[in-house]
Formats: sequence, structure tokens, C-alpha cells
Amino acid sequence: MATLLTSLQNPRIKNLLKLQNRRYRDAQQKTVVEGIREIGCVLHSGLLPQEAYVCPELLTDAAGTAVYQQLQALAKTAELALFTVTPELFAKAAYRGQSGGILLVIPYLSHSLASLTLPHAPLLLIIDGSEKPGNLGAILRTADAAGIDAVIVTSQPGSGTDIHNPNVVRASLGALFTLPVVEATPAELFAWLRHQQIQIAVLTPEGERPYAQTNLQGRLALVMGSEAHGVQPQWLAEADLRLKIPMFGTVDSLNLSVATAVVVFEAIRQRQKGG
Amino acid sequence: MATLLTSLQNPRIKNLLKLQNRRYRDAQQKTVVEGIREIGCVLHSGLLPQEAYVCPELLTDAAGTAVYQQLQALAKTAELALFTVTPELFAKAAYRGQSGGILLVIPYLSHSLASLTLPHAPLLLIIDGSEKPGNLGAILRTADAAGIDAVIVTSQPGSGTDIHNPNVVRASLGALFTLPVVEATPAELFAWLRHQQIQIAVLTPEGERPYAQTNLQGRLALVMGSEAHGVQPQWLAEADLRLKIPMFGTVDSLNLSVATAVVVFEAIRQRQKGG
Repeated sequence: MATLLTSLQNPRIKNLLKLQNRRYRDAQQKTVVEGIREIGCVLHSGLLPQEAYVCPELLTDAAGTAVYQQLQALAKTAELALFTVTPELFAKAAYRGQSGGILLVIPYLSHSLASLTLPHAPLLLIIDGSEKPGNLGAILRTADAAGIDAVIVTSQPGSGTDIHNPNVVRASLGALFTLPVVEATPAELFAWLRHQQIQIAVLTPEGERPYAQTNLQGRLALVMGSEAHGVQPQWLAEADLRLKIPMFGTVDSLNLSVATAVVVFEAIRQRQKGG
Repeated sequence: MATLLTSLQNPRIKNLLKLQNRRYRDAQQKTVVEGIREIGCVLHSGLLPQEAYVCPELLTDAAGTAVYQQLQALAKTAELALFTVTPELFAKAAYRGQSGGILLVIPYLSHSLASLTLPHAPLLLIIDGSEKPGNLGAILRTADAAGIDAVIVTSQPGSGTDIHNPNVVRASLGALFTLPVVEATPAELFAWLRHQQIQIAVLTPEGERPYAQTNLQGRLALVMGSEAHGVQPQWLAEADLRLKIPMFGTVDSLNLSVATAVVVFEAIRQRQKGG
């Protein structure tokens, strides 16, 4: 039987609210997952949640009830601390409406470059400095659908994207947990790509090769830059291939997640045809 | 010299605020455009704005100043009513922050199926019931970049997407004005497509043809359904081709604007190769 928490002064609840702030998430190396589908992906991935907060009044469908039962089973056998909360407390702690009545606290993901198991001709996606959590989440969803082997997000102190941002998790529909997603600094990433003999293909408006007329089979990492500034100069210097998407219109740009999908699916198309 | 408006009680301002509501937009057949880039697309398209509201204090860059000069020139020669407003009034009337200091009132677009001029092998995009203005806007931006010949949005009384929603305009970055975009009922659209001998290709998870292994050249209309429900049954019944995007992941779905881009750019790739 889960303990019912009713007070904003409860230390668990106080800490849960603190995790809305990146500084506390980074310090504790924990984040919060909401949404029944997303929580289902966490449980399916084998990642062990540390805490769960359930508002039974908000569990309105069979999927939510099934996840709650899984959490109750986990609480009996593992290190999961399971609590029930009042609708008022839940509303304070949830990031969005329609969270489905469950919040999960999980440890930060710990995939590393060294832990990746790659096939003979891997297709990797590198996201270098995306500034919008919604775009990064959408890209993870696309990468999952396309069957990308791993997504690597470059990390730099104090800037760029934070893969553990709850809005990334949400926009990915949980794909953050079903794909290998790694954070790495550009320096370690360059060294690793060279050691692994993986070609670096950078998408840039200045690219000389139309993406669809370029061989995207083989050991390949596709590099996407930020919404506002594109890829950083060091990627252009290291690139084996500089790709562009030819533009035929007036507006003359694509949303980052759309551009990523167009090139990723072309690479997948070539691999299926060639394989 | 433009008249300065300072009062929320001014009839022009009262009506400008009313246009935030779809009911009034539909009744007056007018909508509001904000954003310097988007307003630039309106002026570039040759569409004549009816009213312009400028807050000079908010014109902070050269692009905004240039658009203001264009509007001043138009106000001298055409039927444009140009006003300046205080920052307080502007903030009430703008839909979003960072609007750039200019709001334009324009008449609803009046493209019709009969007015479309099509090439020998047109590629059309039909959006049937998208529920999210942000997605519809993003799709228009993609269609512009890809060089689609026309976008047709199905209209049904009281439901579906409203192409004149200011959030569609904004998410399209103005592509609504640079592309032929037509609203039509499904019934008139079916008749027109048959008369024009245009093949109907519907994207659906139940499709039997992988999109990339299907000939997408020729006279083709690609039909995309709503985010939640996909295409309506009548489209499946009328379809010449039922396409799917093979999915390799766990999350097992793509965002509507991403899925649209993947298939549209494959059609463009085939046409460039074949043409």
C-alpha cells in the first residue's frame, strides 16, 4: 500500500518540485518523467525508477491503471519508493496538463560512447547544439521510427541542449528511453569517430553535395547543428561530406526536425535498397 | 504621416482585437499577420493589405524599418489605412511577443481549385483535417522549400484547420503567401482530382506500399490525415495508392509534419532523378 502524501512541506514533494529546475536535476543526476506512454517506455527499457508519485483520481484509462500496477509490483521487489498524492499536489508537480496521473523520478541515463554496440555499417545521428527541447524530442522520435543506431548529443558546459529536460522526454514520446542516446563533448566525439572509422556528414546550407545524390551507406554519422546558427565551425573543418537539401521556395529554410528527418530517411532508403 | 492611435476604445483597435477570434475573422473574411518576415512575404506576394498598425518604438532592426517604409509608400498610393500605436496598445493586439512592431490586416486568400495553374506532372499536397495550427504551418513551410505546386486544405463546417489562423501564418514563416494554398470541400476536391486525372496517394499506417518503393512521379496528390485519426475513410476508398512509411522503432509513429516532409522529399527526389 503506497503512502499518501498531502503536504507541500513533505521533503519528498519539496524535492520533486525542485527537480523542475535544471540546476537541481544536474546536481542530483535525476529527472522527472510524466505521461503514461513515456513512463511505459521507461519501464519497457529496463531502467529502474527511483520514485513514483501517483494520483489515483487522475488514472482515467486502462493504460494508466496497467502502469500503476507495474509500479506497485516494482515497489514490492525493487528500490522504488511509491507514493500517492492528492490532485492538488499533483497539479503543482506536473509540468503539463494531461499528465495521466503519474510522475516518475529516474536517474540520468548513463550511456557512453564506449558502451555503444554498433553494427557493421552504423548510421548515427549527432545533434550539435539544438536550442529547442521540442525539436530535440521530435528528432529522437524520428530517430526511433527510422531505426537509427544511436543519437549523440554534444554537451558543453552551460550551453546547448539538456537531454534530460522534461520537455525533451515528452516531445520524444519516450523515445529517449528506447534508443541509445549519448552525451559527449565534441573533442571526445571527434576522437571516437576517427577511431571507429565513421564518416562525418554535416548538413549545412553551404554544402556542396545534394543529400539525395550522395552515398549515405557505410559507416556514417550525420551531424545537425542548431536552429539559429547551424553546425559549429569545427564540424565543418572535420567533415568528410558537406550535404545540403536543395530549396525551391521563398521561405528557404526547413525546421530542424524536418530537415533531420528528410536526410535520415534518405539514408535509410539507400540502405534498404543497397542491403 | 500615419495617425497615432492611443485608446482601446478606438473602433479600429476594437475591431483589431476582435479579429483574434475566428468567428469575427470568418465573418469579416480578414485576418491579422504579425512578424516582419511574414509581413515581408505578404508584400512580396502582391496581396494588398487593408490596414497596418505600427509601433515605431518596437521597430528595432533594419528589416522592420524597411517594411515600414514599404507600408508608408503603399499608404500613399493604395487603399491601405496606416496607423501608429503605442507600445501598450500594440501589446494588447499582438498574438505573441517579438512581433517586430507591425500588425497587418489582410483579406482572406481567395485561391480556388479553378484558379490553379498546374504543370504537366504536378505534385500536390492535400491536408485533410490537421488539428494543430503549428503542424499545418510547418507543413506549408516544408511545401514551400520542396517546391510543391499547390497545397489544398480540406474544409468542413465547424471542424478541421483554419488556414487563416494567425498561428498557421506564423509557423509557416509566411509560406502561406508564397505558395498557392486552396481550401476545398472533400466532395469538390474528389471531382476536381478525377477531372484533372491526378492520382490520389494516401499515407496511412495500413498502406500496402512502402513510400520509397513506389513511383511518385506523374500527376500526383499526396493526402495526409489528421494527427489523431489519420485520413478519413472516404480518402481510403478513393485512393489509387495507399502508402506507408515503414517504422523500425518502439514509439512507432512520426509527427505529422515530419511524415509529410519525408514523403514529399522522396517524391521530389524521384522527379529530379527521373526528369
